[in-house]
Amino acid sequence: MPIGGAEDHRADKHILRRFVEICGSNHARLLIIPSASSMPHTTGTLYQRIFSSLSVESVTILHVMSRAQANDPTLWQDFDDITGIFFTGGDQLRLLSLIGTTLLGDKVRAWHEQGVHVGGTSAGASAMSEQMIAFGRSGSSPCQRMVQTASGLGLSKAFIIDQHFSQRNRVGRLMTAVALHPRMVGLGIDEDTALMINPDRSCEVIGTGCVTVVDGRQLEYSDMYAAKRYDPFTMSGVNVCRLEAGNHALLAC
Amino acid sequence: MPIGGAEDHRADKHILRRFVEICGSNHARLLIIPSASSMPHTTGTLYQRIFSSLSVESVTILHVMSRAQANDPTLWQDFDDITGIFFTGGDQLRLLSLIGTTLLGDKVRAWHEQGVHVGGTSAGASAMSEQMIAFGRSGSSPCQRMVQTASGLGLSKAFIIDQHFSQRNRVGRLMTAVALHPRMVGLGIDEDTALMINPDRSCEVIGTGCVTVVDGRQLEYSDMYAAKRYDPFTMSGVNVCRLEAGNHALLAC
Repeated sequence: MPIGGAEDHRADKHILRRFVEICGSNHARLLIIPSASSMPHTTGTLYQRIFSSLSVESVTILHVMSRAQANDPTLWQDFDDITGIFFTGGDQLRLLSLIGTTLLGDKVRAWHEQGVHVGGTSAGASAMSEQMIAFGRSGSSPCQRMVQTASGLGLSKAFIIDQHFSQRNRVGRLMTAVALHPRMVGLGIDEDTALMINPDRSCEVIGTGCVTVVDGRQLEYSDMYAAKRYDPFTMSGVNVCRLEAGNHALLAC
Repeated sequence: MPIGGAEDHRADKHILRRFVEICGSNHARLLIIPSASSMPHTTGTLYQRIFSSLSVESVTILHVMSRAQANDPTLWQDFDDITGIFFTGGDQLRLLSLIGTTLLGDKVRAWHEQGVHVGGTSAGASAMSEQMIAFGRSGSSPCQRMVQTASGLGLSKAFIIDQHFSQRNRVGRLMTAVALHPRMVGLGIDEDTALMINPDRSCEVIGTGCVTVVDGRQLEYSDMYAAKRYDPFTMSGVNVCRLEAGNHALLAC
């Protein structure tokens, strides 16, 4: 469940409540990984408090401060019965610099394949896919150098996920990312909005914003190679669809 | 067989001669794909002449000017008996914009899996891997925004290939690419130099330059996330090795 950041923490907590429900409600056993944050203790404790207020069975923070720790399986040996993992916001490149290609990264993929639910907000959403938007510029037109991609956690080979999407005007950078990786479907998730992706690829949008789907798999033309630096470029055959909350969709990819 | 560009065309033609040998010498049936070039007819004809002078059985140019053509299998229906494919230089992003995620891209992967040898020089070398360096800056220090990666042809999931390597001082951008994709091994190939990669991953360097191997799979630390724009960043645990011509190596990846 990727979340576009800035989800409601105080009122109804609709999205986080839904995450707890799919993880088993009062039987939910959650693991929070706050490594994307520059203040992991503060951020981890914040989400621990929120999830505790939603009456889960347990919620633990896994602090990983170095790649050496992320390669030490004793750190997570007590968590084999978790039902959900939650990645906080921060910087997705910080998260991947700490746990990408480590044993913890492998373990997260293994948990996910075993049916443990994975949620992440903001940077934690971006980090989920195999091709990850590492950073980039705002703007509505795709421009040659506006986005840089990196290897993500690899929970999905089909999607590239962007967040704070409408609020930070990121449609240009998601289109550019799709031009660089036309096998992928771009998912732009607004703030306080989440996309529930089920194992059968059926999806549901929840929250107060939209999800923008940028599908470049039928790309007809791109002259990105001819643009220089931050010049815009031409692309055609990109299928864009915008799903409001409550929409269900089957993402055929 | 990725080639670092600027290979000898006139004298001994050592590298291209070796490519012809592995493709069957006077039984070699070659297909040239010059779509990376901004002058594909000129470039295609140049390589057709060179390979003809090396006494191959046949050498044909496949001109692909649009993605629609790259999705039309009648274009290559007569070439099922080829023994080698050669990608010319130019711009790897132009090549991928034309044939990436098309039926021709699929066909190239199928040919490669069936044992058809694939050679490429400069852009044609970069394009071979799954993660491709699309473009970037020169320099010896890794810097945050110095390289942009995209999806390549996908003939190898293990390598990221760079070319004109020593001549254009590209060690910084290859290290940056490896920091973005630490599961990959970076191969920096000098001009007039090639790396023969056999199906069993044994390799041989040929030509007049070197191949630089940048292996980030044991990455200990990277603070790329903390750098801004073109600031250098710290990374440790990267294994760099430099292989001269005549060197044989087993790339354990």
